[in-house]
Amino acid sequence: MSQSQNNAQPLFGGVEAGGTRFICVLADSRGFIKARTEIPTSSPDTTLAAVRDFFLQSAPAFGQLAALGVVSFGPLDLDRRSPTYGYITKTSRPAWSQIDLIGYFKRSLNILVELETEVNGSAVGEFTEGAGLDCENFVYVTVGTGIGAGIFAGGKLMQGISHPEVGHMMVPQAMDDHFDSCCPFHTHCLEGLASGTAIHKRWQTHPKHLPPDHLAWDIEAYYLAVMCVNLTWMYAPEKIIFGGGVMSRDFLYPKIRANLKHMLNGYAHDVVLKDMNSYIIPTVLGGNAGITGALSLARRAYLEARNS
Amino acid sequence: MSQSQNNAQPLFGGVEAGGTRFICVLADSRGFIKARTEIPTSSPDTTLAAVRDFFLQSAPAFGQLAALGVVSFGPLDLDRRSPTYGYITKTSRPAWSQIDLIGYFKRSLNILVELETEVNGSAVGEFTEGAGLDCENFVYVTVGTGIGAGIFAGGKLMQGISHPEVGHMMVPQAMDDHFDSCCPFHTHCLEGLASGTAIHKRWQTHPKHLPPDHLAWDIEAYYLAVMCVNLTWMYAPEKIIFGGGVMSRDFLYPKIRANLKHMLNGYAHDVVLKDMNSYIIPTVLGGNAGITGALSLARRAYLEARNS
Repeated sequence: MSQSQNNAQPLFGGVEAGGTRFICVLADSRGFIKARTEIPTSSPDTTLAAVRDFFLQSAPAFGQLAALGVVSFGPLDLDRRSPTYGYITKTSRPAWSQIDLIGYFKRSLNILVELETEVNGSAVGEFTEGAGLDCENFVYVTVGTGIGAGIFAGGKLMQGISHPEVGHMMVPQAMDDHFDSCCPFHTHCLEGLASGTAIHKRWQTHPKHLPPDHLAWDIEAYYLAVMCVNLTWMYAPEKIIFGGGVMSRDFLYPKIRANLKHMLNGYAHDVVLKDMNSYIIPTVLGGNAGITGALSLARRAYLEARNS
Repeated sequence: MSQSQNNAQPLFGGVEAGGTRFICVLADSRGFIKARTEIPTSSPDTTLAAVRDFFLQSAPAFGQLAALGVVSFGPLDLDRRSPTYGYITKTSRPAWSQIDLIGYFKRSLNILVELETEVNGSAVGEFTEGAGLDCENFVYVTVGTGIGAGIFAGGKLMQGISHPEVGHMMVPQAMDDHFDSCCPFHTHCLEGLASGTAIHKRWQTHPKHLPPDHLAWDIEAYYLAVMCVNLTWMYAPEKIIFGGGVMSRDFLYPKIRANLKHMLNGYAHDVVLKDMNSYIIPTVLGGNAGITGALSLARRAYLEARNS
């Protein structure tokens, strides 16, 4: 107990790096927020220096910064054996390509740094404090301008040589849908048919203007149910948790569940069939999932280093 | 060295439990086969007792049986927290439903027992001695009367609340294909459209009678390429290794690679695009993958117990 009283109390930093802003949070070991700021995303030099300065200036009053968790737009190199591990790689924001995120914060703050994709970060957030609490096997899917997923299997983020990109899976076209995939690369592409961008292009209006009884949502629910079928068989999760702008429309959930039930036709794991209402669920943390995950990553890095 | 000379040399048993026969192998710690037998699959009592007797009779001449690896037809309960962990659950062979495989061998041989599905066992075999050697992230797919896959991610078999069943993924129908899925439950079902059973039903002849230039193989290559697209994005493997009866037709591989290249259209991980010939590959172990995996499971169980 004495340790938590003195100035060397370990503090944890979380950064959510987005295309328009960087959210930065300083928290103590129990998760209480000590300081928070938002920094507009401009050039890498300016933005990263402002993030660094926030932690340098805010931490000393409360303790000592022990570790930083960063969840970031990508693509990221997350292969620990790679020479460019921790870099943003080729991104659509040219100034941010080949930026060494982990290296920058390690050097300038002299601390442990963990990095994950935005969607993996949100999955970590849901796992530690949200809809995936105490659930070792689940999928967190975000449906917004794009579609992405973070997968927990056996209590850990599942990863191959790179993070999964479920948005690119090929799916059967819906019967009533004559829209071509808006993905510039792939036909039959989930993201090209069911992302917010696809809905916008198909109906020539922002999804938020489409009423609940519009055909748009029947088509959307069909594609998201196909995705759930494939996630179910590929990862055998206990839950599929949805986040992202499109999924803020509550009426989508019963539609997805009804489609999924129809498609599975009585054949699936018991956990799926017995209670669809607890299988297909919305995020608990909403817009805070990413920054919550970033703080969790920092705490975990600190504990692992201390125990190793 | 002296240890390998005495009678207490640890021996490892492998069992591949199939619908028509059980293959049993006894090996030393370096993998050399000391004894082998095949037992026809009849009633559980008779078959399991014959397997037990094989190990009881063959082991003493060479050392002491230390652990047994079993790869089996399923479905299996592989959830270690479940009261029926290690059981064959509801199977299409009624006499074999609710049979406690792990319990039977633990009790009758008094040793460590590890259990996996047939396809996971084959994946373990390819990982330790086959096409997945030294590869931490790969998918092993078998295309025979059904379609199944074992997934290695980070050097371990990937599993949620159950093993993956990729054969049930939903895929877009091929343009030239007017066949309804032969899966009794699911439309747009990979296994219902692309298994050996599906080929047989679609063309009313056994796949082995279909010549290489038959339309059947263009359709088959299309579905297997769609599957590879989805496996690529869901698991980010370094390799996709194929086994099973259908995949013994060599001419399928270039067809699958050509379809996959077309579908990915230049957008995928470098490892996929740079050398399709080492990304889509056949099994090295063939029909021995399962029993090789069973022996690996036994060795691993022994080493983990010794080191813990």
